[in-house]
Amino acid sequence: MNAAKQIRVERTNNRQEAGLVDRPAQMPSTQPDGSPLRRLPEIILQRRATSRFKAQEVPDTYLSAILHLAAQAPSGYNLQPWRFIVVKDEIGRRRLQKVAMNQKKVAEAPVVIIAIGMKEEWHKYLTHILEEGAKRGSGNPEKIERAEKGALDFLSHQKMDVWVTRHTMIAVTYLMLVAEAYGFDTAPMEGFDPAGVKREFAIPDEAEVVALLALGKAEPPDKAYPGRFSVQKTVFYERYGRNGQ
Amino acid sequence: MNAAKQIRVERTNNRQEAGLVDRPAQMPSTQPDGSPLRRLPEIILQRRATSRFKAQEVPDTYLSAILHLAAQAPSGYNLQPWRFIVVKDEIGRRRLQKVAMNQKKVAEAPVVIIAIGMKEEWHKYLTHILEEGAKRGSGNPEKIERAEKGALDFLSHQKMDVWVTRHTMIAVTYLMLVAEAYGFDTAPMEGFDPAGVKREFAIPDEAEVVALLALGKAEPPDKAYPGRFSVQKTVFYERYGRNGQ
Repeated sequence: MNAAKQIRVERTNNRQEAGLVDRPAQMPSTQPDGSPLRRLPEIILQRRATSRFKAQEVPDTYLSAILHLAAQAPSGYNLQPWRFIVVKDEIGRRRLQKVAMNQKKVAEAPVVIIAIGMKEEWHKYLTHILEEGAKRGSGNPEKIERAEKGALDFLSHQKMDVWVTRHTMIAVTYLMLVAEAYGFDTAPMEGFDPAGVKREFAIPDEAEVVALLALGKAEPPDKAYPGRFSVQKTVFYERYGRNGQ
Repeated sequence: MNAAKQIRVERTNNRQEAGLVDRPAQMPSTQPDGSPLRRLPEIILQRRATSRFKAQEVPDTYLSAILHLAAQAPSGYNLQPWRFIVVKDEIGRRRLQKVAMNQKKVAEAPVVIIAIGMKEEWHKYLTHILEEGAKRGSGNPEKIERAEKGALDFLSHQKMDVWVTRHTMIAVTYLMLVAEAYGFDTAPMEGFDPAGVKREFAIPDEAEVVALLALGKAEPPDKAYPGRFSVQKTVFYERYGRNGQ
């Protein structure tokens, strides 16, 4: 009896409107200059972390498309714990640079996105997200209470900083690859002082600052390719340590 | 004197050959049936986490391309802490299913990749990776000792489980999106017992089990789209909480 009551109370607390929406309808189908989108193998093989950016701005249509597509990233229970703060004002980028190891590219790039993961906010939305999903045909409307119990049990065993990093990084990788597909250059960064970033951009305590992504057009030359481990070093078959197929 | 000596000793310990290689030369330029690669906006808008897989295998050329491209993911100091265990044997997939909340798709998909992050192994390779990078034109050969000190200082302040998750998830997202570009279907998963996965696949203690990715061809119907937060909820401008541009 008590357990059932407790779940009911929790569910009420969790039922904040999440404002879920449909997929965006239309995305730009070419690069800004009309040339075709770059393909994934080409992007991955040619991409370098950009160290110097031109002042040239990212057109709003494209920035918006990049953000809308990143918002489609998958997440556990569809909880979408990532949030993005888009820093475009020069003063903001200079403030960010100061808490990001003074990296020149932070002030130079026309856009820098701060990616954070919210460790607690999902509690508010869990019920509504499950209900909305079921309404849209994903999940059984009869079993929402059970799904919610399962989710709460699973999440209570996760390290929340790791969990939000796992999901936020999928969305950050989407941002980076979509930007590259549209012909922009990017620089993902982990060199920052999280407390400083939070202070400067009014980010709540519960947030984990996960990554920064600078976005724009590269000022050549690109950094040289430093090599990668061969797949013999990083890919195993059937069990750890076993090479070949 | 003592500090300098200490650094020298560390550097010797860290200088294990990392076996870095160049980018792979040639990747398949079409899907297995000859149709063109799928483009990123289309992939992202249409992708659903696959819940049922056909038995149909992933051709080796394609599995190899997916793994080679994922190995190109960026990482801090190029340390590439991810490792992948490719599970194709049916017995292996059944063993994995048992430690992955008994999810049917784990045994059903022709390929499941276990993605892990190595929290300690990078120590061995740090010096060599920096030296190799400098040799290839990325980084100043005169300043390797300083770069190494900087890296060790930075990394000593990181939570290693978060740090390996950050990087491994970029590579996992590469795996997923490249597979989708080549026309395969995927299911990223976080529902597993990490200790069980480590035990069953001989994974070292230092590893963080980050994610599983099932790979193959979907058995229709696809799961319904559950909705996403609108970007007004997840994207802010200039400071946390501020909407619009």
